[in-house]
Amino acid sequence: MKLGRLNHIGVATPSIEQSIAIYRDLMGADVIRAPFDLPEQGVKVCFIDTPNSQIELIEPLGPDSPIVGFLAKNPQGGQHHVCFEVPDIVAARAWFEGKGARILGPTRIGAHGTPIFFLHPKDMGGVLTEIMETPKDAH
Amino acid sequence: MKLGRLNHIGVATPSIEQSIAIYRDLMGADVIRAPFDLPEQGVKVCFIDTPNSQIELIEPLGPDSPIVGFLAKNPQGGQHHVCFEVPDIVAARAWFEGKGARILGPTRIGAHGTPIFFLHPKDMGGVLTEIMETPKDAH
Repeated sequence: MKLGRLNHIGVATPSIEQSIAIYRDLMGADVIRAPFDLPEQGVKVCFIDTPNSQIELIEPLGPDSPIVGFLAKNPQGGQHHVCFEVPDIVAARAWFEGKGARILGPTRIGAHGTPIFFLHPKDMGGVLTEIMETPKDAH
Repeated sequence: MKLGRLNHIGVATPSIEQSIAIYRDLMGADVIRAPFDLPEQGVKVCFIDTPNSQIELIEPLGPDSPIVGFLAKNPQGGQHHVCFEVPDIVAARAWFEGKGARILGPTRIGAHGTPIFFLHPKDMGGVLTEIMETPKDAH
């Protein structure tokens, strides 16, 4: 196991539209991908490119969204998770299981269309950490 | 103003030593820079490289450290800030002032030895955001 690319930082927001305005008008983002629903994760998603990584804006998709609690505690939004790439998600899951790290739920398809899972923040110094298989056509 | 590189994610921790162990032994980080004190910011700092960015671990340097309050709320540590690069810190500060964004304190020298300032999270969707002048010898 070798630490991979920081694929994105996940930022929860009550409004993707308002967050896009911040990154576009204040921070000067010029590559803002089209927002889309990810019902499997209960979120609406929008990727904003930086020259070396991405910001993933996530907004609740309905009242049962897993980020509703986060936004109740952080009404303006805030840093929700970070995501690192791995070359092989099956090998990575076996690695983390072998280390005794707690994995949140099954491996599933993430916002980039490749398999992902999340590590419990209690095993990652308080940082909710997504592990994502690198897209085959990336980089 | 154009959105620059995601220079690093800032992760607060009660113990840089323990956090290094997590990123080295669990995540497979192999480029872990020597920790150092940054008394101007009241923190001890350690940079860990990813292939495209860095993780900045910050630990309180003394009881008056500005991250003591964060760690009281998040005893295990957690995501503290994100940092984007700009080519010219003076121009960037003027840009954000012109936009009415709140800037936290004066421009000062940051952990990479170049000038930085912080934008208030209330103007950045709840995300404490560091603006950093790109080191002259970087990238």
